[in-house]
Amino acid sequence: MEIAISSTLEKYLHEHIPLSSTMGIKVKEASSKKIVLSAPLFANINHKKTAFGGSLSAVATLACWSLLYVNLSNLSDNPYEIVITESHIKYLKAIQEDFEVDCQFPSDISWNRFIKTLLGKSKSRIELTATIKSSGQLAVSFRGTFAAIKRQHQLP
Amino acid sequence: MEIAISSTLEKYLHEHIPLSSTMGIKVKEASSKKIVLSAPLFANINHKKTAFGGSLSAVATLACWSLLYVNLSNLSDNPYEIVITESHIKYLKAIQEDFEVDCQFPSDISWNRFIKTLLGKSKSRIELTATIKSSGQLAVSFRGTFAAIKRQHQLP
Repeated sequence: MEIAISSTLEKYLHEHIPLSSTMGIKVKEASSKKIVLSAPLFANINHKKTAFGGSLSAVATLACWSLLYVNLSNLSDNPYEIVITESHIKYLKAIQEDFEVDCQFPSDISWNRFIKTLLGKSKSRIELTATIKSSGQLAVSFRGTFAAIKRQHQLP
Repeated sequence: MEIAISSTLEKYLHEHIPLSSTMGIKVKEASSKKIVLSAPLFANINHKKTAFGGSLSAVATLACWSLLYVNLSNLSDNPYEIVITESHIKYLKAIQEDFEVDCQFPSDISWNRFIKTLLGKSKSRIELTATIKSSGQLAVSFRGTFAAIKRQHQLP
């Protein structure tokens, strides 16, 4: 089941956000509880031969977006639109190898509040976090706020 | 002179941060006072046919990095290393066309404090801001903290 979600999600990202394909992003793990995306250093390298900050931010953004996408796709046949409204990222350690971004499911309190508002008002916001480790140490800490908005039915 | 800086900077970015070339980033304007980078929508599009947030963050990061790079290259033959340590970005409006990121020189007070510490302690930090407009309205507001560190002379 998780393999199916991973494969579907990767195909969706590559088709709809072509930069994710250029960056070599792969979905390593995808479930409603956790998303892990990987990216190779060579496609995301900078002048110091370490991972480019812009790439790290982009992959973290996609990991958090994907966690919402997987969860909200389960809620409704007419999925919600999910957009990022702001984010904050800390670059704590240079990354000199291929890397993985890990986005964990938020606290139940946070999630339940988000869903309650979404179902009641057709829109809601939630903060998600993602991390990247390098050689066992925290290298990147990302925090993003995402808005979900119920898509309007289109006229035929 | 500005054309020469723009062309040199663009070549440097494309060679050393290959994703900047893939994203179609062009240096529209480059001086010690201002950097303007452009990017086409088609290479940075998302599932909603608007500019991907990860791309917007990456271009803003590069614009601010470039402003420091141009200024610090003028200071020394052995340029400083410049790294981003953290950033905060607000996505205020979806962008449905090619876009430009504008990074302005910071206040003189901020710049002078940064340079004084850099010359005295061989390392220093500064906060820079960048913006992206769409149809005349502010669409993205970016704030990044960058560290400059005097490069050590290498043994032959």
